[in-house]
Amino acid sequence: MYDIIIIGAGPGGYVAAERAGKMGKSVLIVEKEHLGGVCLNRGCIPTKTLLNSTKLYKQAKSSAPYGVHAGDVSFNWNEALVWKNEVVQLQRNGVSFLMKENNVEVVKGSAELLEGKKISVDGKIYEGENIIISTGSSNFVPPVPGAEGNNVVTSDEILDLKELPESLAVIGGGVIGMEFASLFSNLGIKVDVIEMMDEIIPMMDKDHTRVMRRDMKGINFHLSSQLLKIEGRKLTYKFEGKEESLEADLVLMAVGRRPNTGGLEKTGLDINKGRIVVNEKMQTNLPCIYAVGDVTGLSMLAHSASRMGEVAVNNICGIQDRMRYNAIPWAVYTSPEAAGCGMTEAEAKASGRVVKTASMLMKHNGRFMAEHGKTAAGTCKVVVDAETGVLLGVHLIGGISSELVAGAAAMIESELRVNEIKQIIFPHPSLSEVIRDAVWALN
Amino acid sequence: MYDIIIIGAGPGGYVAAERAGKMGKSVLIVEKEHLGGVCLNRGCIPTKTLLNSTKLYKQAKSSAPYGVHAGDVSFNWNEALVWKNEVVQLQRNGVSFLMKENNVEVVKGSAELLEGKKISVDGKIYEGENIIISTGSSNFVPPVPGAEGNNVVTSDEILDLKELPESLAVIGGGVIGMEFASLFSNLGIKVDVIEMMDEIIPMMDKDHTRVMRRDMKGINFHLSSQLLKIEGRKLTYKFEGKEESLEADLVLMAVGRRPNTGGLEKTGLDINKGRIVVNEKMQTNLPCIYAVGDVTGLSMLAHSASRMGEVAVNNICGIQDRMRYNAIPWAVYTSPEAAGCGMTEAEAKASGRVVKTASMLMKHNGRFMAEHGKTAAGTCKVVVDAETGVLLGVHLIGGISSELVAGAAAMIESELRVNEIKQIIFPHPSLSEVIRDAVWALN
Repeated sequence: MYDIIIIGAGPGGYVAAERAGKMGKSVLIVEKEHLGGVCLNRGCIPTKTLLNSTKLYKQAKSSAPYGVHAGDVSFNWNEALVWKNEVVQLQRNGVSFLMKENNVEVVKGSAELLEGKKISVDGKIYEGENIIISTGSSNFVPPVPGAEGNNVVTSDEILDLKELPESLAVIGGGVIGMEFASLFSNLGIKVDVIEMMDEIIPMMDKDHTRVMRRDMKGINFHLSSQLLKIEGRKLTYKFEGKEESLEADLVLMAVGRRPNTGGLEKTGLDINKGRIVVNEKMQTNLPCIYAVGDVTGLSMLAHSASRMGEVAVNNICGIQDRMRYNAIPWAVYTSPEAAGCGMTEAEAKASGRVVKTASMLMKHNGRFMAEHGKTAAGTCKVVVDAETGVLLGVHLIGGISSELVAGAAAMIESELRVNEIKQIIFPHPSLSEVIRDAVWALN
Repeated sequence: MYDIIIIGAGPGGYVAAERAGKMGKSVLIVEKEHLGGVCLNRGCIPTKTLLNSTKLYKQAKSSAPYGVHAGDVSFNWNEALVWKNEVVQLQRNGVSFLMKENNVEVVKGSAELLEGKKISVDGKIYEGENIIISTGSSNFVPPVPGAEGNNVVTSDEILDLKELPESLAVIGGGVIGMEFASLFSNLGIKVDVIEMMDEIIPMMDKDHTRVMRRDMKGINFHLSSQLLKIEGRKLTYKFEGKEESLEADLVLMAVGRRPNTGGLEKTGLDINKGRIVVNEKMQTNLPCIYAVGDVTGLSMLAHSASRMGEVAVNNICGIQDRMRYNAIPWAVYTSPEAAGCGMTEAEAKASGRVVKTASMLMKHNGRFMAEHGKTAAGTCKVVVDAETGVLLGVHLIGGISSELVAGAAAMIESELRVNEIKQIIFPHPSLSEVIRDAVWALN
């Protein structure tokens, strides 16, 4: 009998295990593949590692304005993959160490949830006082004719391509699709993005998605376009009622991910639209059974899963805590990077609030100019409740937006008001000042 | 008669002018050289621009582990200077625009403070309801024999070197000295640093200065060493009572800066140890005369000066505000970068508090590993009040520490406690997570 059994060792599961172990609970975590889950093995970590390699390549070729000249810059895809695999392995070792350090028992295998807070792993039965389901999500491939072809991959397979294609078509302009589009475009590969909606990356401010598309000169965007079929290299899609086509060596399917709820339906768990239903304590409808991360479909981000894991463990341990969704940052590691936290202007207005917004171009920032040049795209937009002055959202594109957004998350989570933010001293010269400058630009 | 006359258009003066102008005040700002002051023209901005160029050079030569190969990487110092000058000019234009946009009158010339809230600029008299003195500071060259030689420069002249030296000796291991040491070392130039104290960069945590020195393999450090004389290329210094010597083509004097109080003594201003004495509203002993920035000697950082300028203007405008020094971030743009905010462990203990600290190595961070490799130095240390759980300090070395510290400043300024910080969601994978992980590592 364990205090807590956790199914799935992704960022929801392993963080829950670590926190629970630290609090002295007896914890069992079951993982059918590798510690770290999709994020560490086939998501965040490998993609950011490869993206960084391609950014270094692009940088090495374009540093002449700064006085740096490099002849014969070349990119070795296989070496980049070797490094990516090494980073993944090192991070897996790190999670393994964390589990040992916190006395978490790790079992490899496929877990089946049984009645009465029991699970079965390869025929062996384990029992827990509490169970946390963190089974994650999987790539969804739409039933398009030709999608099963050899030249069609998902984000799982594209991370281990034997060789680079000459051209790539990305189906789906969400975060995953856009990161891969940027990765291959950074290498000079022709990229087409086909997106059904009228804009890429749904959570981004619409002013910023336009900036991003304009700045990604090597990528052809086909918005409001529906893929109809794939015939070898030929992709046919519908745009404004007409059939159009394009050619690509490789097709990446990145239309979305679906929660992994297979086998869970029969247990009596409340599953709605393919997602396990949870309350703000991450409790399911079954006593002492919690669910966290992608499988809840509430916020399909690694760091949301980790926080949900903490909330579940705190509630199990009798510590008051609840999951909130208003200050979850997100980041897209494209070139240019983009990130945000809190409400967009559109969301804030839709919520019925009176809002004020202001934007500040990064080119007015000394460090940004010095390091990114005169023509780089970049802006920061802040959204504020006009009645209370509370900061509702911060949205960034350009530079190292992904590293600035944690500061924004701290401010939004702390419900800081404009007058309080104005008293925070930002280091000069740093790109982080753009947040302060956007706040000062509010009327 | 102006509402506010500001003497000196550095980051203290021009920010004060901007804020006051925005509030409808009639403002005159006097500058004897260039808008932006030392920071923009001979400090922060030009050094960071040149440092970035040298970092790009170093990066281009060392990207092979990531699969990026560049042949014949070369650095063109003159091109780097051209870009540096362009950035400075663009930023100056920006300040000029800000002044116009906020109806600030700019007068070029040397201001003399007269009695009765009047000033004289090249013989012309101006009168203000209030005066803000933001005259900044200047490089201090110690009276060492040989310091007037042709091969001895300060940070003013080194920014416009006609050609690179083959070797450099830096006198003073503070922020300015270390940034130039790093800049030239990045280019493969032999660098020696001579520092009188037993450690570099006084405000850094001593655990971190050790990490920095160990990581700067191309720099020879001579600590607890006092420069005695310079004879051409030969520098003689005293170490443990003995005279030792080293040779260098160029010598950079970076022992410190002194507040510019010349001509102010006769006005009756309270000046102590060369600094204008101010209270927390930035008021001097004379009615309606304020002082901000380096000339107060209280915190010789550009962003401190700007905040002091805001405090002065707010008090002039009847808005309650006071300067606080507990949450001022600092950053050093060396390779590796370092930054911090709030108290070091030593300072917190010296203040009589019971403190808890924890450190987290950056190599455990997925993004840091992916982008900086297996051997890069990096760590984050947090200092917490053990009795209240309030965050007192965050200290960083490695990666882009300079961009993470604004988030730390927001947390310290907001007096967040450990339990509140644990509820902030940090984006994954980002280096910013190292702050959260250090907080979680606290016992």
